Amino acid sequence: MAQYTSLEHIKFLLQDVHLLDEVVSLPHFSHLKWEEAWMMIESAKQLADRHMAPYFREMDDKPAHYEGNGVVHTHPQLKNIIQHAAENGWIGGAARFEFGGMQLPMMLFNTAQHIFMAANNGCQGYFSLSAGAAALITSFGSKEQVEAFVPKIFAGQWQGTMALTEPQAGSSLTDITTGAIPLEGGMYKISGQKIFISGGQHEACDNFVHLTLARIEGAPPGVKGISLFIVPKFFPEKDGTLTSNDVFCAGDFQKMGQRGYCTTHLVFGDHGNCKGWLVGEPHKGLSYMFQMMNEARISVGLGAASVAMAAYQTSLQYTKERPQGRLASEKDPLKPPTLIISHPDVQRMLLTQKAITEGSISLAMECSKLSDLVQATNGEEKQKHWLLLELLTPIMKTYPSEQGSRSVALAIQTLGGYGFTTDFPVQQHYRDLKITSLYEGTTGIQSLDLLGRKVVMEKGKALLALTASIGEVIKQASSCRPLTIYAEELNDELLRIDQVLQHLGQFVKQGDIDRYLSDATVFMEQISYVVIAWQWLKQAVVSYEKIQNENFQNQKRSFYESKIHTMKFFFRYELPHATACSKVLMNTEFLTNSKASETFD
Amino acid sequence: MAQYTSLEHIKFLLQDVHLLDEVVSLPHFSHLKWEEAWMMIESAKQLADRHMAPYFREMDDKPAHYEGNGVVHTHPQLKNIIQHAAENGWIGGAARFEFGGMQLPMMLFNTAQHIFMAANNGCQGYFSLSAGAAALITSFGSKEQVEAFVPKIFAGQWQGTMALTEPQAGSSLTDITTGAIPLEGGMYKISGQKIFISGGQHEACDNFVHLTLARIEGAPPGVKGISLFIVPKFFPEKDGTLTSNDVFCAGDFQKMGQRGYCTTHLVFGDHGNCKGWLVGEPHKGLSYMFQMMNEARISVGLGAASVAMAAYQTSLQYTKERPQGRLASEKDPLKPPTLIISHPDVQRMLLTQKAITEGSISLAMECSKLSDLVQATNGEEKQKHWLLLELLTPIMKTYPSEQGSRSVALAIQTLGGYGFTTDFPVQQHYRDLKITSLYEGTTGIQSLDLLGRKVVMEKGKALLALTASIGEVIKQASSCRPLTIYAEELNDELLRIDQVLQHLGQFVKQGDIDRYLSDATVFMEQISYVVIAWQWLKQAVVSYEKIQNENFQNQKRSFYESKIHTMKFFFRYELPHATACSKVLMNTEFLTNSKASETFD
Repeated sequence: MAQYTSLEHIKFLLQDVHLLDEVVSLPHFSHLKWEEAWMMIESAKQLADRHMAPYFREMDDKPAHYEGNGVVHTHPQLKNIIQHAAENGWIGGAARFEFGGMQLPMMLFNTAQHIFMAANNGCQGYFSLSAGAAALITSFGSKEQVEAFVPKIFAGQWQGTMALTEPQAGSSLTDITTGAIPLEGGMYKISGQKIFISGGQHEACDNFVHLTLARIEGAPPGVKGISLFIVPKFFPEKDGTLTSNDVFCAGDFQKMGQRGYCTTHLVFGDHGNCKGWLVGEPHKGLSYMFQMMNEARISVGLGAASVAMAAYQTSLQYTKERPQGRLASEKDPLKPPTLIISHPDVQRMLLTQKAITEGSISLAMECSKLSDLVQATNGEEKQKHWLLLELLTPIMKTYPSEQGSRSVALAIQTLGGYGFTTDFPVQQHYRDLKITSLYEGTTGIQSLDLLGRKVVMEKGKALLALTASIGEVIKQASSCRPLTIYAEELNDELLRIDQVLQHLGQFVKQGDIDRYLSDATVFMEQISYVVIAWQWLKQAVVSYEKIQNENFQNQKRSFYESKIHTMKFFFRYELPHATACSKVLMNTEFLTNSKASETFD
Repeated sequence: MAQYTSLEHIKFLLQDVHLLDEVVSLPHFSHLKWEEAWMMIESAKQLADRHMAPYFREMDDKPAHYEGNGVVHTHPQLKNIIQHAAENGWIGGAARFEFGGMQLPMMLFNTAQHIFMAANNGCQGYFSLSAGAAALITSFGSKEQVEAFVPKIFAGQWQGTMALTEPQAGSSLTDITTGAIPLEGGMYKISGQKIFISGGQHEACDNFVHLTLARIEGAPPGVKGISLFIVPKFFPEKDGTLTSNDVFCAGDFQKMGQRGYCTTHLVFGDHGNCKGWLVGEPHKGLSYMFQMMNEARISVGLGAASVAMAAYQTSLQYTKERPQGRLASEKDPLKPPTLIISHPDVQRMLLTQKAITEGSISLAMECSKLSDLVQATNGEEKQKHWLLLELLTPIMKTYPSEQGSRSVALAIQTLGGYGFTTDFPVQQHYRDLKITSLYEGTTGIQSLDLLGRKVVMEKGKALLALTASIGEVIKQASSCRPLTIYAEELNDELLRIDQVLQHLGQFVKQGDIDRYLSDATVFMEQISYVVIAWQWLKQAVVSYEKIQNENFQNQKRSFYESKIHTMKFFFRYELPHATACSKVLMNTEFLTNSKASETFD
């Protein structure tokens, strides 16, 4: 089997760069030791090798499909996969002990998810959605709700989903119309339609727990009138029996990629018999849902990075094995061809992939650690971590999902014509990855969130937290001789972000919020380059210290040299495009205002 | 049916920007009038509407496939499509009268091909390959060869192909091993295997004319020992009967996209009975083949632009019809949602697509016109046109095939989750388009051709010809008040190309050719931005003049304003990345040398 990720890189990130030890030294996580954590990672890899990776292609060849009568057929292996994930703690593992979880740090939990998504991104969503749904219930649900649903979800018997989108309301949740009418006994009668429901109703689970956004009769308009409900497919009666709850799967969507991961259309209460439990207080549903959405956004970004990583591993193996052509300096056609990996252009393509994928996974670990620190700390410290995590979440969602496509395109390119054929997995990676810039909020939505909410939240404190964290690494790098120039360059890019925000700030002052937000996606691109540069400089500082101290206990010297080399590559080949983005953003003409739609008459 | 291209834009390019009238005023093409030419375009559009576009999706759903016994099954409509193309002159139309052609300018011929590829890119290859193969025979073949093969190909009964790639020789033609042994009577006995043969042997044609690269026994090694042969599937006997020529289709490749366009594996002479005709002189095969390859490269680039154009049209229609969300300045959730097209980020995505697709098609017309001028002029003038065409060909192949993927990704993005579903064509466009950066020479190969051959050919005269042509437009734009700043910016970018080449030139002087070529792909990216900026400035100058003179005979004022707007958009949003590329190229460290392959140990 081709390799799909690098455990060495993962170990480096957990142990040396993001310091899992710091996390497990906190009381909340102190039940865990490094050795134990690493054993869990190795066992997750074995699980993925044995039960997920072998079905990657087959789940694409024989996609999940609807056959009428409410049934979505999924791959026969899916039930096994979900069961294995459950048994090994990869659904409920991150939950607190009190909820039946293992209180695992997200650093560990997400590392395992990375391995699963790299092995087979079309199966991981089923159980990670379940994990997110259960987490939402434990955070905001009642004791009864937790007891009724969480154990079954953790056991992999019931599938959790998030039911937000409606036919007329995609990116705009403001406009959802699914209704909820109070019934006696605290329940609500639910009616409406939801589309694009990943992992909606299928064969591999016994019941489905749809975390559904709906509007209670008489609720205020807009997002301030949205409530959150638990709406199961089958209603669990007190005696443990399941009765139909009038949630019908009316069809599915066939897709370009992630074809094993079903995407369904659900109809709630077509016969007037659909009941839901309100979670928490009325009209606060969207704020609750954001917990699940934020986790899912990090997971989607990590998924994109994982798919790109799997493609990179294929590309690496191919270029090390396939001879083709000669260097330009070698004119003798009788000399044997060189391996593809020796061509500078191929090295450029490999380094680009390495920089994007490993950089993204490093950022995912940064976010996961922040999530753990939010969990395990209090007061001002917790607040600081939370702010930084809020700012990084849309970036973590977007950079891998946009640049990951470019990375996989380069993987295809290194395979030449073969990369386009179904003989190799990279074309599937290319198709699969594209969804990540769409679901859980498109790139456009993430960018509006970043510039419109996160940058300005609490008077810019989140951005200050980012600048401080990057500043720390710049400071460390400045004291490592060969890294100084890169530290300076990163600092320059930080200043350029500041300039851009000052430039855009004038539109806020003028009350022109549309103009302020118009190039949010370009700003996302700019700051993403800077954030990934930060992750690379961070890895380079650690690597430099290892080399200086000749500390090659964990990895060979060449491993650390390669990290420094890739950092340099990122700064030389990618970072100049951050400068270009800042130039775009400093534009004094508003070329995309609504008047400009006449351009398309 | 959704629109897939814009006849208005095509008319503007042919009539106002690239002046087809100049071409048809030359004696070689003077048999044609504008009105007649335009009627042919309109009839090509009808042909595509009626016989090609309706099968776009179906040819993907039911891909060409091999079923053993040498048979590739193609879509039942394919035979009709090829027949209609033949009857309307879209196989042989560009050939000279003496060969049974219509002596059509490439400007016209390629415009029709653009329409066909936008309508259904999986069917056009069959007949355009035939056109290229026949053109190669008319250029370099004997009278007998022309008579034996060309009429049948022009009639759409026989399929022409190009048989270059072998299992061990993809990008590196130096290493092909297919053999040719002289027989009595001037024929050769052919043996070997070819892979990735587009339109190889299938059901929809009666015979196949494989233009095959092979090595005559005892030929010098490398590309200097490659000869070109006509190797038909069935041998046409003097009495008109066809006898088997021992060319066996041994299988096909299943692909991510262009699934209706078969890609085959051919075995020549497995039973020792395969005969081929030598075309022209021995050992000159590759230089002949370059004629077909150059035409095919322009066609592939135009194909990419056409697919991206079709996706853009879908995106445009969707964003004009689908209401979703409100502008950031509109806080009232009770106000009805706005159309997607009103969101600045959506306009950015539409303008990016418009800039990439229309800019690429304009470049294709520039190249087609040069090809016509090479055909219809002589001496120094011919030489100048030829040099510029040589330089532009790899750019024309590459820019649309790389940026086209980005363009279609944006089309998907504007459709949100729907873009990823098979309910809409954009996901097929995304899959189809990816092949264009691979076949007919990968992006890496095109970039080596550009920097390693074209830039330096005849002491840089090709580059001087480009600079002169761009300079003319800069001069024109400089005298149009509102365009002056863009003219200056384009001039700055030209100077940056010069700086980069001076920087790289030092490596040539040092004899370090590997270093000189190492970032050829980045150079390709840089010069491509500049070349497309030139095409946009050219369109803007014409549009500006139309508006100044209130000449709205052909198009509305808003049409011309839209061109100027899109030019500005390209200069503001895209061109800064050319500057970024120049920064990458001025790099003083060599990060992708072969030693760096240790990075991947």
